[in-house]
Amino acid sequence: MSEYIYGKNAVKESIVNNSKILNLFTLESNQDIIKLAKEKNLKVKIVDNNFLNKLVKGVHQGVVIEVKEYEYYSVDEIINSAREKMPLIVMLDGLEDPHNLGAILRTSDAAGVDGVIIPKNRSVGLNATVAKVSTGAIEYIKVSEVTNLTQTLKHLKSKGYWIVGAEATDKSVDFREVKYDMPTVLVIGSEGKGISRLVLEQCDFLVKIPMFGHVNSLNASVSCSILIYEIIKYRED
Amino acid sequence: MSEYIYGKNAVKESIVNNSKILNLFTLESNQDIIKLAKEKNLKVKIVDNNFLNKLVKGVHQGVVIEVKEYEYYSVDEIINSAREKMPLIVMLDGLEDPHNLGAILRTSDAAGVDGVIIPKNRSVGLNATVAKVSTGAIEYIKVSEVTNLTQTLKHLKSKGYWIVGAEATDKSVDFREVKYDMPTVLVIGSEGKGISRLVLEQCDFLVKIPMFGHVNSLNASVSCSILIYEIIKYRED
Repeated sequence: MSEYIYGKNAVKESIVNNSKILNLFTLESNQDIIKLAKEKNLKVKIVDNNFLNKLVKGVHQGVVIEVKEYEYYSVDEIINSAREKMPLIVMLDGLEDPHNLGAILRTSDAAGVDGVIIPKNRSVGLNATVAKVSTGAIEYIKVSEVTNLTQTLKHLKSKGYWIVGAEATDKSVDFREVKYDMPTVLVIGSEGKGISRLVLEQCDFLVKIPMFGHVNSLNASVSCSILIYEIIKYRED
Repeated sequence: MSEYIYGKNAVKESIVNNSKILNLFTLESNQDIIKLAKEKNLKVKIVDNNFLNKLVKGVHQGVVIEVKEYEYYSVDEIINSAREKMPLIVMLDGLEDPHNLGAILRTSDAAGVDGVIIPKNRSVGLNATVAKVSTGAIEYIKVSEVTNLTQTLKHLKSKGYWIVGAEATDKSVDFREVKYDMPTVLVIGSEGKGISRLVLEQCDFLVKIPMFGHVNSLNASVSCSILIYEIIKYRED
């Protein structure tokens, strides 16, 4: 199985990481990419815009690579490879927008998150748009696709993790009030519906980001990233 | 002020994205659009080709909508309506992605930012996609479009503002080290190029968000939002 990644930055990241590229199609004008590919001993196929437009629908900036399908990890692989002291795992409860997933993978990699868990159904998975928005982070951050988030949370709890849900309810506390010095799973809800009921019931803490304006929620990747950096910061202090 | 959008696809986009549609003129033959409009509770005016040809000059494919133009404010209007104690203004130096602008407007409204400044050229402006991603914040947060960011920053400095640029340079400090108890302009660079040189020279502080992974930058709306919430938090403590 293979799929396409496009756009200069995403392609460059993939080339640098080098593992799974089956084909590289580019306009002759992308000399920087051609040079980089040759350094990595990748075969380059010079094509025209017509060819690329047929290959992918998005803004490809003159370059498309065909890669082996994105690799998923098991939850136990994430747990076992996580840092020993205070690991941090992000769980996304049904995100639909690939821009959000891509941005969250980017932040997760930048902040040193140990892994990201998504549900197999009713959720965007790893694809070319996610890869592009992640600016290459998709190559590094471990993503696990599970059939049942609730069961997964129970498993993580049995391994010593505490569950922090980002959801504004009556019981939720300001996100800066929680002591994050514990193995943590940060749960982010879907764009429209937030965290689903059964997942919410598994949460040990519910946190909210204070708001003072007219809109009453933030973009999912924005709130996820604010919370990730708060957790990171808490542990540094 | 209003303007016309025409052609089936553009009109459908506008209907789906909830543009502020004042009037919808269409041939009776465009049944798909009429159906879509009714689903959205829009009033449809059936007209003939003659009418449409007088309205717009382009290839209208039998359908034209009149939409409200998004309102911009002057920088002085933002300054004058800002809270007295420690106002916060966000300046975006050439963002290209409407998703980023929309998400930043959303965070800015939620966090109580006093206004957002964007350049007139080489930047995405207010449009239907931005409106949709902002989830309505576009109606509340004041946005100013200026021809010269550097001049605008000089003007803001003369009014007592301090300029904080989000840019990872040798001189930049961790974003949590700055004391934000001052009237602040937070400057965010463009997705590809960061903050431009002349704007950078106006900055009193340069801050960076620490990163520990493989990617070396965050999504523009993510970093902007993390910084906005850090500033808000600093002032609360």
